[in-house]
Amino acid sequence: MDKETTIYDIAKELSISPTTVSRGLNDHPAVNKKTRQRIYEAATLMGYRSNTFASSLRKQRTNTIGVIVPMLNSNFQSSVLAGMERVANEAGYNLIISQSLETVQKEIANAKTMFDNRVDGLLVSIAYDTENVDHFEPFFSRGIPLLFYDRVPEHKKCTSIVIDNIQAAYKATAHLIEQGCRNLVHISGSLKVNLYQERLKGFKYALMDNNISFSDACVISTNLSVEAGISAAQQILQMDPMPDGIFVSNDTCAVSCLKTLSQAGISIPNDVAIVGFNNDPITRIVEPNLTSINYPGEEMGEMAVRSLINYLDGASDVAITNTITLRSELVVRASSTRKGEAS
Amino acid sequence: MDKETTIYDIAKELSISPTTVSRGLNDHPAVNKKTRQRIYEAATLMGYRSNTFASSLRKQRTNTIGVIVPMLNSNFQSSVLAGMERVANEAGYNLIISQSLETVQKEIANAKTMFDNRVDGLLVSIAYDTENVDHFEPFFSRGIPLLFYDRVPEHKKCTSIVIDNIQAAYKATAHLIEQGCRNLVHISGSLKVNLYQERLKGFKYALMDNNISFSDACVISTNLSVEAGISAAQQILQMDPMPDGIFVSNDTCAVSCLKTLSQAGISIPNDVAIVGFNNDPITRIVEPNLTSINYPGEEMGEMAVRSLINYLDGASDVAITNTITLRSELVVRASSTRKGEAS
Repeated sequence: MDKETTIYDIAKELSISPTTVSRGLNDHPAVNKKTRQRIYEAATLMGYRSNTFASSLRKQRTNTIGVIVPMLNSNFQSSVLAGMERVANEAGYNLIISQSLETVQKEIANAKTMFDNRVDGLLVSIAYDTENVDHFEPFFSRGIPLLFYDRVPEHKKCTSIVIDNIQAAYKATAHLIEQGCRNLVHISGSLKVNLYQERLKGFKYALMDNNISFSDACVISTNLSVEAGISAAQQILQMDPMPDGIFVSNDTCAVSCLKTLSQAGISIPNDVAIVGFNNDPITRIVEPNLTSINYPGEEMGEMAVRSLINYLDGASDVAITNTITLRSELVVRASSTRKGEAS
Repeated sequence: MDKETTIYDIAKELSISPTTVSRGLNDHPAVNKKTRQRIYEAATLMGYRSNTFASSLRKQRTNTIGVIVPMLNSNFQSSVLAGMERVANEAGYNLIISQSLETVQKEIANAKTMFDNRVDGLLVSIAYDTENVDHFEPFFSRGIPLLFYDRVPEHKKCTSIVIDNIQAAYKATAHLIEQGCRNLVHISGSLKVNLYQERLKGFKYALMDNNISFSDACVISTNLSVEAGISAAQQILQMDPMPDGIFVSNDTCAVSCLKTLSQAGISIPNDVAIVGFNNDPITRIVEPNLTSINYPGEEMGEMAVRSLINYLDGASDVAITNTITLRSELVVRASSTRKGEAS
């Protein structure tokens, strides 16, 4: 590797003082525009790198934000990251991204790496089996801002960005009831995860408010995969009486359940109406198109980074705002529309 | 913010020498296991951060790999990133990720940020309108390894990881011809991009080898979006005679074209057989299921990071291997199967 170009090299090349070069590179008003231009050109030509590194050491800032996601390979998470990256990049921050692959062990290792790399702040959506936040303690005790988004822990110290999962699930279920469903089933994710507990609550409350009785037999708890949708559909086909409405906690599972029921001769939505969650692209591909909850992934990502940067700039105190709730909405499509109300 | 914990603090706490602490933290054999254990425990308790920063300055390594993707919000790119992150993380590297949002201007800015942040290596999939690689010159001249993947420029200095797009497109087209199609159309992406030029070549060669004449009227050049699929289908419906086979350069566009033709009363695959590209999840959702080229995104990501790290460790010379080509395969489904050959 070549020797690193320094401001001294540029100064020598241009026969001006190193101080002038340094000032020119930092847009100091004492250096006139023409000289600044010459300095820039020489710097680019000579491959000078502004010493982000050394300047970070001085400022105690690295201008990086760490992100720990459960899985990079997900429609929802990639929307969130797209939003995060845009805002971070505009504000001059870089994202360091890692994935926990849904295990708390890897999440603990990721948190340590982020800490050792001195990220200025951390954004986390927790893994499936994360039960406490002890591994984030170094961030809390050092005052490094930490925001949880989407999958968030129950913890007094945490600031979270979420949607109102109870309300969204309530809306989805109430919509099925409006369409005439009386015998409803909920296909849920792991009930160890807050978010799925809350969606189950929303489902229950909607039944209750409409005087429909709830029993544990109404809930099929799964991992929400394609396979889970198939096996849930097989379970549903054995039920007597068959349910007439299904609310599923994600679209992947809802679509595979819908297709399995269709193939078994069940008419959707007339025999069984179905609502999913996330508003993934597949909702517009499957026939009939799937009613779903539109989840503002990109907005969630933008909001998360914006909040963190505001805090870092001293513009807000992250500890004051404990929870930021984004709006989600029911998008009604043919899979649940029995009376022609679909938009 | 609290004062940073140093090895001196730990030494004082344990009444041992700072040298012993430093050696213990670096697993030096001169420190016995029990003492090392005590040092680790104290370090964790006291919130000690190994000084990755200072040690990077010494080693001239940052242990970070930069990645520039066109769009984070894409099925294919998120598979690639998942593969990259896994390999990087296992090898003790962090990924800094940014997106060009498909514009060369933003790609230039991203490249500069990566350079100033002293990434140890860079992985790039170029934007739609990137026509040269001048903005990566600082990496070349400084010997910082740079690998292009998937969307790669034509440039002598570049190492690339790709699939054989000509061959894949050839296979897709030959399959349509085998199924009896004689009047074929290709829906392409921007022909400014290498990858789409190559797929067009594969399409042409397959026609040629089967004595089917090619004319420019066989190619509809689009941006491969959902909307592009609808408008391409409308164009196709006006053609006289109607084509009997369509090869589309991605699945998103293929699926929306398929659905538009279906809605117009065209029978798929009997009137028109269709093949897409990427093997996205939607291929298994649409009816009939879409034949497609399986694109090894995760493998491409793993391979890219592995090659870069091998180079950084001196285990291989990235400049020797100019192109790494990964295998892709045709996955035959109902959208193109006229004689019952589908697997």
